[in-house]
Amino acid sequence: MDKKKITFADIAKYTNFSKTTISRYFNDPDSLTLENQEIIAQALIDLDYQENKLAKVFANGKSEFVGIIVPNLYLHYYAEMLNQILNTYEKFGYKFLVFVGNHQKEIERQYIQELLAYKIEGLIILSHTISSEELASYNIPLVVIEREDRHVNSINTDNYMGAVQATSLLIRNHCDVLLHINSPVAKDIPSYGRIQGFQDTCREHGVEHEMIIRNPGHSHKEIHACMSEIYEYMEQKYPGLRKGLFLANDTMANSMLNVIFRKHGSLPDEYRLIGFDDSPVADRAILPISTIGQQIDKLAYEAMELLVTLMNERKKRRPMPQTELIHKNITPVLIRRETTD
Amino acid sequence: MDKKKITFADIAKYTNFSKTTISRYFNDPDSLTLENQEIIAQALIDLDYQENKLAKVFANGKSEFVGIIVPNLYLHYYAEMLNQILNTYEKFGYKFLVFVGNHQKEIERQYIQELLAYKIEGLIILSHTISSEELASYNIPLVVIEREDRHVNSINTDNYMGAVQATSLLIRNHCDVLLHINSPVAKDIPSYGRIQGFQDTCREHGVEHEMIIRNPGHSHKEIHACMSEIYEYMEQKYPGLRKGLFLANDTMANSMLNVIFRKHGSLPDEYRLIGFDDSPVADRAILPISTIGQQIDKLAYEAMELLVTLMNERKKRRPMPQTELIHKNITPVLIRRETTD
Repeated sequence: MDKKKITFADIAKYTNFSKTTISRYFNDPDSLTLENQEIIAQALIDLDYQENKLAKVFANGKSEFVGIIVPNLYLHYYAEMLNQILNTYEKFGYKFLVFVGNHQKEIERQYIQELLAYKIEGLIILSHTISSEELASYNIPLVVIEREDRHVNSINTDNYMGAVQATSLLIRNHCDVLLHINSPVAKDIPSYGRIQGFQDTCREHGVEHEMIIRNPGHSHKEIHACMSEIYEYMEQKYPGLRKGLFLANDTMANSMLNVIFRKHGSLPDEYRLIGFDDSPVADRAILPISTIGQQIDKLAYEAMELLVTLMNERKKRRPMPQTELIHKNITPVLIRRETTD
Repeated sequence: MDKKKITFADIAKYTNFSKTTISRYFNDPDSLTLENQEIIAQALIDLDYQENKLAKVFANGKSEFVGIIVPNLYLHYYAEMLNQILNTYEKFGYKFLVFVGNHQKEIERQYIQELLAYKIEGLIILSHTISSEELASYNIPLVVIEREDRHVNSINTDNYMGAVQATSLLIRNHCDVLLHINSPVAKDIPSYGRIQGFQDTCREHGVEHEMIIRNPGHSHKEIHACMSEIYEYMEQKYPGLRKGLFLANDTMANSMLNVIFRKHGSLPDEYRLIGFDDSPVADRAILPISTIGQQIDKLAYEAMELLVTLMNERKKRRPMPQTELIHKNITPVLIRRETTD
């Protein structure tokens, strides 16, 4: 804090440029040749490293900041995705300004405006509140993960393939009837693929099946009550049949397993069960739960790699406009544990 | 990107100052009166909001950035703490640059140096790698949470009180012998209070007790194996006695409950069990686990509020140096669920 501030005069003296030239460097760098910009940038480093970063940002907008917006950090999925994105610092050198949306659209918008004012170079969006059309209008390198993506670049889990893997395993486990338990999902959300993959696979194999779509709420108690109710329903409707349950996430799967296990003191032969996500709750359940593992490390890395490519293009003197959106799918992994054969 | 850049000439014309004065604003703002600084700052807003933020930072170092370093986001405790800190954006307006340390001291150091170069105004540290002595030497407003804090300001959970609450409940539950299961903890870490509080309370009440200190590892499998081994040990050493278990965190408590529940198909009367943290795993266990709830929202808010006070002091023309370190304790809350009476 007490370091002597360098003045334009100091920089001018050091570089043998006029003070006007130094002033132009900060105010209108493109009026200088690239060589002269570099000489001045180097002088700033030589004279006082601490000043350099902001001076460079101020001059050319290369802040090396990326904004991230996650909907929440309560779900392990988002916490782990954030973790994996932040871990790319070592590889790419970008620093991350992080915001938790909590479904407050207006505050999210305000935050993005602030980030743009700070000349962030790119954005990674995991929250669902702002439409991809609006996101595209910000005209900044941008990648979304697992959300509506019609007008923006995206990296998604191949949800359809995940559902095919889960459903096929339940069929191989000789289940008589298959049930997919999910909450309402819009068709333009990637995770809708879980519903489609389940239905297609059941039809293809001619297996009796049913979709159970409920809004189980967010609290543990609400989810538990919802799963209890579904359990009673299944017991009544499919007595004596072996039921294969494909649950849309591991939190639901854990709650359902607890309901069954408490009734029977174990997981009876009549039930087979698989979740989705490979979150810690699956591994730590009373019986380790089979699940479809999203490759969060790959999703995060691919998103950042794509964003870096887009940001590098923007830094060129004559950047090429992106002519086609990029949508990339990452195949999930079947993880067999103790709730399936 | 295509917005016309404002020049010093534009600002000079708008404010009726000379170009030299504008240049001094960016280069040596303290050579201007506060009033004139404000007139120019306002002009920058009026002329082009996008430029303003960085110009202001460049001029006076008020970046409104705070750096956060967490050790990992795998533990819910850190993810939720980060969440609560980020949520103070609405209240205080600070934006957060977030880094996950993963116990890599050198990269943590490098990251902090980068942050300082970007003129962050303050730091919140949750990771344990860098000593408080070194942190203090950075000479920047700084608050740590639940870690060694001899030379820096800190906000901590009152771990001792939490242990007293847990131990007292087990005594009221008429347990014959009390066991505290923990991993090795250094005495200068706040969470050492859990060990001390347990021992003092047991001695005060003249209750038979034992400390079981193990390094259970990090993976679910390792923890499960460790808890199985401790279970066999307890069964052998204290047959027929009612055992009250106080586990150092909910992850261990969940794992121990699973071991017991799988053996017996329920939680037998011979065991009473309480964890620490109130992480989701406690609520979602096969039986909801009693626990000591850390008030993460309060810890986060108090840390940020203290940091804001320190940062505001720094912004004054003649900041007062901090003469005494501030250490604040937040009392945790006893949460009674189904693993205690």
